[in-house]
Amino acid sequence: MNLILLQNNDFSSATLVTLTGRRLQHVLEVHRAKVGDILRVGQLDGLMGEGRVCTLNTDKLELEVQLDQEPPEPLALTLLLALPRPKMLKRVLQSVTALGVKQIYLINSYRVEKSFWGSPLLQPEKLQEQLLLGLEQACDTILPQVHLRPRFKPFVEDELPQIAAETSAFVAHPVAKNACPLTSSGPSTLAIGPEGGFIPYEIEKLQECGFAPISLGRRILRVETAVPVLLSRFCAL
Amino acid sequence: MNLILLQNNDFSSATLVTLTGRRLQHVLEVHRAKVGDILRVGQLDGLMGEGRVCTLNTDKLELEVQLDQEPPEPLALTLLLALPRPKMLKRVLQSVTALGVKQIYLINSYRVEKSFWGSPLLQPEKLQEQLLLGLEQACDTILPQVHLRPRFKPFVEDELPQIAAETSAFVAHPVAKNACPLTSSGPSTLAIGPEGGFIPYEIEKLQECGFAPISLGRRILRVETAVPVLLSRFCAL
Repeated sequence: MNLILLQNNDFSSATLVTLTGRRLQHVLEVHRAKVGDILRVGQLDGLMGEGRVCTLNTDKLELEVQLDQEPPEPLALTLLLALPRPKMLKRVLQSVTALGVKQIYLINSYRVEKSFWGSPLLQPEKLQEQLLLGLEQACDTILPQVHLRPRFKPFVEDELPQIAAETSAFVAHPVAKNACPLTSSGPSTLAIGPEGGFIPYEIEKLQECGFAPISLGRRILRVETAVPVLLSRFCAL
Repeated sequence: MNLILLQNNDFSSATLVTLTGRRLQHVLEVHRAKVGDILRVGQLDGLMGEGRVCTLNTDKLELEVQLDQEPPEPLALTLLLALPRPKMLKRVLQSVTALGVKQIYLINSYRVEKSFWGSPLLQPEKLQEQLLLGLEQACDTILPQVHLRPRFKPFVEDELPQIAAETSAFVAHPVAKNACPLTSSGPSTLAIGPEGGFIPYEIEKLQECGFAPISLGRRILRVETAVPVLLSRFCAL
């Protein structure tokens, strides 16, 4: 927790917040703060700044906050990710949030196990937990939007053309002939398949939508490794 | 396990191997192979190729193997990594192995917790388990070398000049003025600090050794995210 994220209902006045629970515990046990200390804070979907500890005990933390800094620039990249298994999804959501992705589409693919769509992790409040962890890690306040698209064909046919319009669109595909470019200027859309990759039909549908297949070489990477490798290539972080 | 790794003592003749234990379980439960199936295999530190299932039961797997393919090119990069906490070390070792790093120095830094050096994970056979998982994931056979350097100063003064000689050397440093370059030609050496970063004295010592400090921007990334992001920038994967 490199940033303490504040939500609207934490504010008791324009500059005073009261925190309990997980954030209080963290400040007590990890920051080991005391009254008068300055902590880095940010308002969810708002500005960042500093909070001075006014009260700190095992029941509550009161901070007097001053919010005057813009959060870091978002990445100009929309991510389409074939839904990974829940344990990996947690880590990937945290890391792509930390990297600054703001639009995440979790999509279906032939090789996505059907049971993954029933995971409790996909409930909005559970997804948000992972996103908040990513923001707290990276010192950012802008919550990414996660869109669940459990049907591939209607998503690609009806919605994707609009999403990918006026972006450079790529799909990571292990057997693609072209290597991943080292940089891309301007906004991009990146699709990453499941373990085992998209099937040929899916690649074809994405190509119809303007996605160029690119490869990262002979090595087969786990999704959690491939995602930061690819994002690093596409964006000036 | 995208590749079944064979060790010398698995071979009962030049082309016949017998497997039990973890690899047998995987072939039974994940590959769900049957006699006659072809599986991707590779000899540790040797060639890759195919193995035809001759015998498969709950006691053993026998494969007739043909090894005639070179493993993928290694990355021309030596990695210096401040020793992370054991849980993260496991994941990082797997991912850097999958990415093709062959020389890994786990080094000390002021902000590395002393207890990490006592972790059972640092025993050679435990380290090797993680490296094998990375090779099996990426389809590679060349085992990386992991060097433990629990004393920063003697390592940097006595050994590092030789290691970094004739490479482009960089140290990831959040407050560095220069951004991480998008690509580097030729061999490189990359140093990555602990959570919280190297201290100024350590950065100075690395700079004396020719390391240029570079930053990934305002976002603070976990080591497991920063490592693939950085490797992606430095190497044509």
